[in-house]
Amino acid sequence: MIVALSGGVGGAKLVLGLSRILPPDELLVVCNTGDDFEHLGLSISPDLDTVMYTLAGLANPELGWGRRDETWSFMETTAMLGGETWFRLGDRDLAVHVERTRRLRLGESLTSVTLDLCRRLGVGPRVVPMSDDPVRTRLLTDHGWIDFQDYFVRQRCEPSVRALEFHGAAEARVQPEFLAALTNPALSAVVVCPSNPFISVEPILALPGVRAALAACPAPVVAVSPIIGGKAVKGPTAKIMTELGLNPSAESVAQRYGDLLDGYVVDLADTSEVQGIPAKVTLGQTFMRTLEDREAVARIVLSAAAKLRRRS
Amino acid sequence: MIVALSGGVGGAKLVLGLSRILPPDELLVVCNTGDDFEHLGLSISPDLDTVMYTLAGLANPELGWGRRDETWSFMETTAMLGGETWFRLGDRDLAVHVERTRRLRLGESLTSVTLDLCRRLGVGPRVVPMSDDPVRTRLLTDHGWIDFQDYFVRQRCEPSVRALEFHGAAEARVQPEFLAALTNPALSAVVVCPSNPFISVEPILALPGVRAALAACPAPVVAVSPIIGGKAVKGPTAKIMTELGLNPSAESVAQRYGDLLDGYVVDLADTSEVQGIPAKVTLGQTFMRTLEDREAVARIVLSAAAKLRRRS
Repeated sequence: MIVALSGGVGGAKLVLGLSRILPPDELLVVCNTGDDFEHLGLSISPDLDTVMYTLAGLANPELGWGRRDETWSFMETTAMLGGETWFRLGDRDLAVHVERTRRLRLGESLTSVTLDLCRRLGVGPRVVPMSDDPVRTRLLTDHGWIDFQDYFVRQRCEPSVRALEFHGAAEARVQPEFLAALTNPALSAVVVCPSNPFISVEPILALPGVRAALAACPAPVVAVSPIIGGKAVKGPTAKIMTELGLNPSAESVAQRYGDLLDGYVVDLADTSEVQGIPAKVTLGQTFMRTLEDREAVARIVLSAAAKLRRRS
Repeated sequence: MIVALSGGVGGAKLVLGLSRILPPDELLVVCNTGDDFEHLGLSISPDLDTVMYTLAGLANPELGWGRRDETWSFMETTAMLGGETWFRLGDRDLAVHVERTRRLRLGESLTSVTLDLCRRLGVGPRVVPMSDDPVRTRLLTDHGWIDFQDYFVRQRCEPSVRALEFHGAAEARVQPEFLAALTNPALSAVVVCPSNPFISVEPILALPGVRAALAACPAPVVAVSPIIGGKAVKGPTAKIMTELGLNPSAESVAQRYGDLLDGYVVDLADTSEVQGIPAKVTLGQTFMRTLEDREAVARIVLSAAAKLRRRS
């Protein structure tokens, strides 16, 4: 059994790779929900949806978010009506949000809704939220605290970030299946996907008991660096690191994770900076352009975890 | 100034006719909201929308409800996800419901939202709900009381109707502009559109003070029969009348309205049954197929009202 901790796009690439080389019942994907928000009366879970659409083969390859074969009549009409259009919702994507919102209001858990939506879209592995309780990432900028999607979408990551908080995390209960997996003797690795450490992974780590459970976990914890050659493949990781006074490098990310990690997969472009990394480093080609790349990185991670298991 | 009381499709035809021969500021359209309901977390106002789309030139001519140039991605995806699909919501239509729901939740009145949506869609006359408070039509059938849209859409008007109630009507406040218009000296007629008397007009009449205000109103109240040749042009009017033990005729409808009416426009096909009608009858061609038909019926109604005014 493999547990993968994932944010959106970058994480979903590795999750897809893992899903193609593991049997469906041997992969549990735990998604960040710190990006979740309520918009137009709808409960929106961007990372869960990106992973779900990616595994279902429905992700939009041009946009990097939302669905393929999308139509935009809803958004066009909303614009005509003077409604809110800064967060783009395609007509097909909207059906997921409306259906999720409807079922959450009836009292169903986010886990249950997600698993059912995944099943209906033909997703093999189990995809669950990090928690069924709301956690909301907020960022301290030069203009005060703002909500994550305000920062990320409306303001296009332009504000300078001074600090982050995960509102609700201290009171949220960890998704039970995730917590149980961490003490499961059959667990062979926890994979920290190459997602933004600050925005996508740390909300998961901020949940009560998760850091302790990962530290106590007999299976190795292996991360893949989201930084390649000093740059984030996508998104604001490098920008945020610089703003927080950190050097945007594979090494800095590993140091941020600290002794949480047993293994760390670093791109060959970053060979020169592996000295200060407090984990067993594996070098490899980690840029994931093609489907084959995704599978190859997944194999590197699983092989690094296997070596760590043999060593312990 | 003309006040028109309207339900959905049938009423909207005459409203369109009136809108084409009256200056926009001389027509106030008061719509039934007894058909309104909450579905998928959205506040849906079918009659308001039908009138709005019709006046905006956006109504769907094939379906008789919803919008023209519609797409159905949302509904297709909802079906894939196992969501509720019995009430068909097009992608463009959905934008109206989401925007209305968003603004109602922020505390705006249905009147204010409706007027603004109409303005943005280029609708000239003022279109308002009969009340800003919720009124919900319910029907007693052989299987107990059911909600209107359950009866009308999900069960396709198949259950036999024994009684109707307008839940909330007794406590609802009449839309203020409507009530003010009824005492306005400039009012020259109240037009009761050829909508379903039981489902579309009586909810308006059930609001506190409306019957009294219509009785006291100096302007004539003129209805157009929704029954032509013993049949409803569209919808379950004749079926419901039969189930309630009434003869489905133009005469029965007028008797149902009783002394509320000063004038009554009856189709030439029903010339033989005007004896028992307690109002001044005007015979004319009332079937509205073309745009010219709509204008012609509007002219008949306004001319009937003018004659009644001169007589009083």
